[in-house]
Amino acid sequence: MTVREKPSGLFIVLEGSEGVGKTTQWQRLAERLGAAGHDVVAVREPGGTAAGDEVRRVLLDPASELTPETEALLFAASRAQLLRTVVQPAVVRGAVVLVDRFLLSTYAYQGAGRGLQLAALHAVNLLATGGLVPDLTLLLMMPLDAAMARMQARGATDRMERAGLDFHTRVQLAFNGAVQQEWQEQHPEIGPVTAVDASGTPEDVTERCLARLAASWPTRFAGVVHG
Amino acid sequence: MTVREKPSGLFIVLEGSEGVGKTTQWQRLAERLGAAGHDVVAVREPGGTAAGDEVRRVLLDPASELTPETEALLFAASRAQLLRTVVQPAVVRGAVVLVDRFLLSTYAYQGAGRGLQLAALHAVNLLATGGLVPDLTLLLMMPLDAAMARMQARGATDRMERAGLDFHTRVQLAFNGAVQQEWQEQHPEIGPVTAVDASGTPEDVTERCLARLAASWPTRFAGVVHG
Repeated sequence: MTVREKPSGLFIVLEGSEGVGKTTQWQRLAERLGAAGHDVVAVREPGGTAAGDEVRRVLLDPASELTPETEALLFAASRAQLLRTVVQPAVVRGAVVLVDRFLLSTYAYQGAGRGLQLAALHAVNLLATGGLVPDLTLLLMMPLDAAMARMQARGATDRMERAGLDFHTRVQLAFNGAVQQEWQEQHPEIGPVTAVDASGTPEDVTERCLARLAASWPTRFAGVVHG
Repeated sequence: MTVREKPSGLFIVLEGSEGVGKTTQWQRLAERLGAAGHDVVAVREPGGTAAGDEVRRVLLDPASELTPETEALLFAASRAQLLRTVVQPAVVRGAVVLVDRFLLSTYAYQGAGRGLQLAALHAVNLLATGGLVPDLTLLLMMPLDAAMARMQARGATDRMERAGLDFHTRVQLAFNGAVQQEWQEQHPEIGPVTAVDASGTPEDVTERCLARLAASWPTRFAGVVHG
């Protein structure tokens, strides 16, 4: 008797600075994979749970005058709830979990952006994640001026988006650094990160993302890539 | 020319399990010290700031199904905001800051109560407190059955109070352990802890608390103690 193995779950993260079209791609990827018959769970940080959504409101409200430490701890709290109540159970049952932002965003925004130490952020997030590492992070990349123009075009209204050009420049430089192999070796908690060119039409970018997934898991995703 | 020195600020914490009358004493101490002319700032955890009050609502709402890790991180977020925006500035200007619950509660409730490691809680709280240690913790103590009877008499309605007898027994045992000199030496981040008998009338307990303060800072507080 052969036992048919259930495919193992995957924990995929989408990352990138404001304006690169990350949330659009997260939605499009979930639709494409779902349409191809995959069990897909798409969640976003902060939020994705009842408690996390409350925390999200505090984090994004321009009236919240949060210290950098408070901000980092609130993101970690939202992450703990999402990881343990949604992501982990879905990965265990074999689903493809697509998360909009994860620990790399913490390093970029609260580390490089707000000036907190990565070691302290790592310690805090260990309690949140229990050591769970993404299988792959798709990092959407675009020149800073193009991303800022997109962000301004849609109107920067929440507290994170309003943080200023210097802040967003530091964030983007941190994302750029995370593409380097050496950086990834120094931060195994982030897992593998692959850069995806975010220019062109949304359709183009989705195909590039799917091609990356198919490159890593050919039998699972080769059929989803078009043309 | 002599320079008159501004008295240094003090960071005093009130601790104890549910039902020992901690919040009553926190209010009474603030009134007594204020009436005696001291610059007193009384704040409570979680809460005490706009963002902290939002977090407090999530933490105490019986509908919130928080994981232990989320709970610990939310308490730490509220603490970071309170420490950096209220406690630190008040201590620097020379005030007596009275805080209702601090890191020892984290160790008792999220450590002993929820089963999280103290080392992980310490790491998380280092980001929250920046290493600020209370000058003195007044730990109100009462036999567990008496405290539980008081808690039930007033109606246990919030999420922490509803956590069950086993939980509250573990919490109280942790508080009992913190009175030991050896435990305090192993946890310098808690600072000195002194036990105060919480039985008798509220007036009696207030006098005991004031006597402890006067014992530690005689020139500052001797005049506040009655009888």
